[in-house]
Amino acid sequence: AMDGAPPPTSPTGLSAYVAVSQLLGLTLLATTGAWLGRYRGGVAWHSPLQFNAHPLCMVLGMVFLQGDALLVYRVFRHEAKRSTKALHALLHGLALVIALVGIIAVFESHRTKGIPDMYSLHSWCGMAAFVLYLLQWLLGCGFFLFPGASFSLRGRYKPQHIFFGIALFILSITSCLLGITEMLLFKISDSYSHFVPEGILANTLGMLLVAFGLVVGYVLTREEWKRPPLAEELALSMDFKTLTEGESPGGGS
Amino acid sequence: AMDGAPPPTSPTGLSAYVAVSQLLGLTLLATTGAWLGRYRGGVAWHSPLQFNAHPLCMVLGMVFLQGDALLVYRVFRHEAKRSTKALHALLHGLALVIALVGIIAVFESHRTKGIPDMYSLHSWCGMAAFVLYLLQWLLGCGFFLFPGASFSLRGRYKPQHIFFGIALFILSITSCLLGITEMLLFKISDSYSHFVPEGILANTLGMLLVAFGLVVGYVLTREEWKRPPLAEELALSMDFKTLTEGESPGGGS
Repeated sequence: AMDGAPPPTSPTGLSAYVAVSQLLGLTLLATTGAWLGRYRGGVAWHSPLQFNAHPLCMVLGMVFLQGDALLVYRVFRHEAKRSTKALHALLHGLALVIALVGIIAVFESHRTKGIPDMYSLHSWCGMAAFVLYLLQWLLGCGFFLFPGASFSLRGRYKPQHIFFGIALFILSITSCLLGITEMLLFKISDSYSHFVPEGILANTLGMLLVAFGLVVGYVLTREEWKRPPLAEELALSMDFKTLTEGESPGGGS
Repeated sequence: AMDGAPPPTSPTGLSAYVAVSQLLGLTLLATTGAWLGRYRGGVAWHSPLQFNAHPLCMVLGMVFLQGDALLVYRVFRHEAKRSTKALHALLHGLALVIALVGIIAVFESHRTKGIPDMYSLHSWCGMAAFVLYLLQWLLGCGFFLFPGASFSLRGRYKPQHIFFGIALFILSITSCLLGITEMLLFKISDSYSHFVPEGILANTLGMLLVAFGLVVGYVLTREEWKRPPLAEELALSMDFKTLTEGESPGGGS
């Protein structure tokens, strides 16, 4: 196999879309920071500004890092599957920790100010997204990282993992848009309809979140950009296929 | 080919999921009607209740009918492509007309009450969804219904049409959730946080919208449920492939 062929490169289209996604992701973070910094007094933990840690952590964890975790199989499509998979799990794990900090921020802030929890559609969607995202991560680790699951079981779970992974990414973005709408109607309900700069900035943040979701979703669903199996993986999968096809149908694999 | 084989049937899983999607869709409409009827005074055109036509039309057109239009290639997967395609275009066309009525309702209601238009994130997302949906429908008719487009051009546009079709369906659902949040914060901002029945009903409508999107999205993305080409379509595509592969690269087809 080591025949001196040039190292495989990513298709030009893929690189361009990934670059755009990262630009959008950084713009998302900058826009969230600008909104909180310029119009909402900034972010601080033990203070009345603790709430502002919530939007920042959710955009960083549940959108930017979650999106990038989904992209690693496209960006590192010619790397070994083992290391790509580890990076995928690691980025999702980091996203979960940051999201947890963001959730603690809103619950503590509510407790300080005497505001009830979990009554709004934003909180229902957001909590569903977080809990299912944690569950998806645990299932992903159980099926794909630990050696217990059989090859055939992994093969059957994989399409579900991919579908729910993209669905939870979309639900996370939707929850952010709901949060932006809530925050604007709580904070600037009198001036929002007069096209004040804060409203336009926050609406723009919402549209940037939609654009990030669109670009990431487009990269993920292009058939020709999917990660091609390496030669040795194909050989291995043949071996496993031969082995697993010999299993009894009720083998509980 | 007429060898007396039994007519092809849909996979059991597909039928069950489609049935659930239709139950969810009807529950969506009933829940929207219950919210507007029980808590918002009902729906009437030339009256202060004109606004209420907006959520009803958008859920019916941009969610239920749009979703069902996406499903026709799965539900009628063994019918002739020509008639399935006509039904797909017809359902989307009906969805567009009903959505247009819903948009007129909100603009007229705003004018009557002196409320500014298009300032909120809901209006930005919703209008983007509607305008792009109309554009997608026009492009779909141009590429797939009228005989002008070459076979190779249709083949290149098709994946884009499918991706943006699903993306616009998701954006439509997201816009509905934003609209629900806005309406609750406009109408019951004082009692929403006390878990009043109207708030819980409207939140439930939001979760039903998410569930409808999930089930429709799942049906659409299962590889094994995609519409299998009929024998005569395969033969035709071979003929066209031979023809189009003879085209000059810059042929502008």
